[in-house]
Amino acid sequence: MTQPTHLLGVDIGGTNLRVALANANGDIAARVSATTTNVRDAENVVRKIVECAQQLLRDTQISPERVAAIGVGAPGLTNAETGVVIATSYLMGWRDVPLKAMLENHLGVPASVDNDVNLAALGESYFGVGRGFQDFVFIALGTGVGAGIILKGALFQGAAWTAGEIGYMLVPGVAEEPAALGKPGGLEGLVGGEGLRAQWLSQWSMEKTQQPRELTATQIFDAAVAGDALANVLLNRAAHALAYTISNITLILNAPLFVLGGSVGLHTALRERTQAVVDQYARRLRPKLVLSELGSDAQLMGAIRLAQIAPHN
Amino acid sequence: MTQPTHLLGVDIGGTNLRVALANANGDIAARVSATTTNVRDAENVVRKIVECAQQLLRDTQISPERVAAIGVGAPGLTNAETGVVIATSYLMGWRDVPLKAMLENHLGVPASVDNDVNLAALGESYFGVGRGFQDFVFIALGTGVGAGIILKGALFQGAAWTAGEIGYMLVPGVAEEPAALGKPGGLEGLVGGEGLRAQWLSQWSMEKTQQPRELTATQIFDAAVAGDALANVLLNRAAHALAYTISNITLILNAPLFVLGGSVGLHTALRERTQAVVDQYARRLRPKLVLSELGSDAQLMGAIRLAQIAPHN
Repeated sequence: MTQPTHLLGVDIGGTNLRVALANANGDIAARVSATTTNVRDAENVVRKIVECAQQLLRDTQISPERVAAIGVGAPGLTNAETGVVIATSYLMGWRDVPLKAMLENHLGVPASVDNDVNLAALGESYFGVGRGFQDFVFIALGTGVGAGIILKGALFQGAAWTAGEIGYMLVPGVAEEPAALGKPGGLEGLVGGEGLRAQWLSQWSMEKTQQPRELTATQIFDAAVAGDALANVLLNRAAHALAYTISNITLILNAPLFVLGGSVGLHTALRERTQAVVDQYARRLRPKLVLSELGSDAQLMGAIRLAQIAPHN
Repeated sequence: MTQPTHLLGVDIGGTNLRVALANANGDIAARVSATTTNVRDAENVVRKIVECAQQLLRDTQISPERVAAIGVGAPGLTNAETGVVIATSYLMGWRDVPLKAMLENHLGVPASVDNDVNLAALGESYFGVGRGFQDFVFIALGTGVGAGIILKGALFQGAAWTAGEIGYMLVPGVAEEPAALGKPGGLEGLVGGEGLRAQWLSQWSMEKTQQPRELTATQIFDAAVAGDALANVLLNRAAHALAYTISNITLILNAPLFVLGGSVGLHTALRERTQAVVDQYARRLRPKLVLSELGSDAQLMGAIRLAQIAPHN
């Protein structure tokens, strides 16, 4: 019998699917990506994953029997015990998709599934900047805002798998009315990519800035660093809201480390200004804010780690 | 050799020391209390605990060898691993008191020590309204505000033992300036007993209310229920701040149950109004707010539980 020696990791994103083949240590041997635009139906996504996996095995001349397990990050609320994706919040619109079972049927290897931000935290905890920390929080700032929580060295997902859904956090400066169901949370409006774009658009005028009317969140932050006054207001507001959130999480969990990831979260100016505000509020505990070491690979590495630690039999 | 059959539980409060002798199931056989006013020095407190324990054993005619272990709740930051009370925030002014070692020296039985609010959570998790819940949060609202957190069936105390120190939580309506070190947090000002008294005093005038100028938090809540307009403003503000706090904890931990305890927390009007606000904000997760079942015995029962689960050898 062939001894399994390799692992598959998958990161299902709203626009992109990424699949990697790694050895037992988690070193990536080969990787491939594919678009998920117009491939949103779960059956089609699974078919794409299988195709990508087969291509990676062909390219590396590793026989399928050598794959021990597959780990998958899904962009939505996921029951990590059953491997059912309960809901994806945007783009795909999945409801109760039995992703683990579907993958195991198609691939014939044990599959494990979790939320992608949780997997980013898991990836950092083993392969990244969270190494050596029993407790830390990964904050993903992309289009929206979410957190993955590591407590006592393991992922903490919560009673109904929603732990870390911090986009609705109520902090000073956020609108006090309850957010409408399915709408972005108040915190997301201040620090999420979509929210920042929308703020810029609504506050833009030729008198206030010489920057163009359409800017992404990171372009706004760049403009702030370059001295643009309006961009500076938005960056400072984002830094304060994020700092309040981090201070609140620190009060509750006493986590000494926060890892910032996602396209918006990786901007150094946001990290620096947020750390300065956190230092004013959480003076006793002084949690440290660091950028994700794995960057855009955090989810994928977490998926590989999930495959690594999943029970194989 | 005599088989140990009994446990000692101790609740050290700012003004009162309570000691109970329980059987192996945690049923209290006898209890006694003593004042801690003017007995704040740690050596003196330990001496009082030993006296109380001896009295209980005499009264019940149970021989000292029958005591398997002692569990103790301390009113401050406590390293539950070493049993050192790192700091008590008020009244006693303890710093790095090796309470576990002192008790073991004096009593000759294994001692376990934890923060009193953590023990209240532990008490409710086994003997009270938290039974059957893997994850829940006990919120103690007395003079100040604190939380004890049960995750995956066990106490979660945090990397530096400060998890649950929610008195400084930043929610809408709380002053946005950082609280001075050692001063009450903004949330405490709105929902803690001392904060509510101070608010009442500063806002009181004969035109605004017919109630007396000096009222406790629970008397303010009673007045609100009886229709007093000023008291009603304070109760509503407290309910909102507490609801925002609970909503934030829910986003982070996805805890389905919050147990309210402490003299202020046990007021039914506060629970009802807070639940109503929580229902507006955390509509998807709808955590349930309930009153502590053990009431003023929560800490003591938690101390007995701590003795029960501590390794005895």
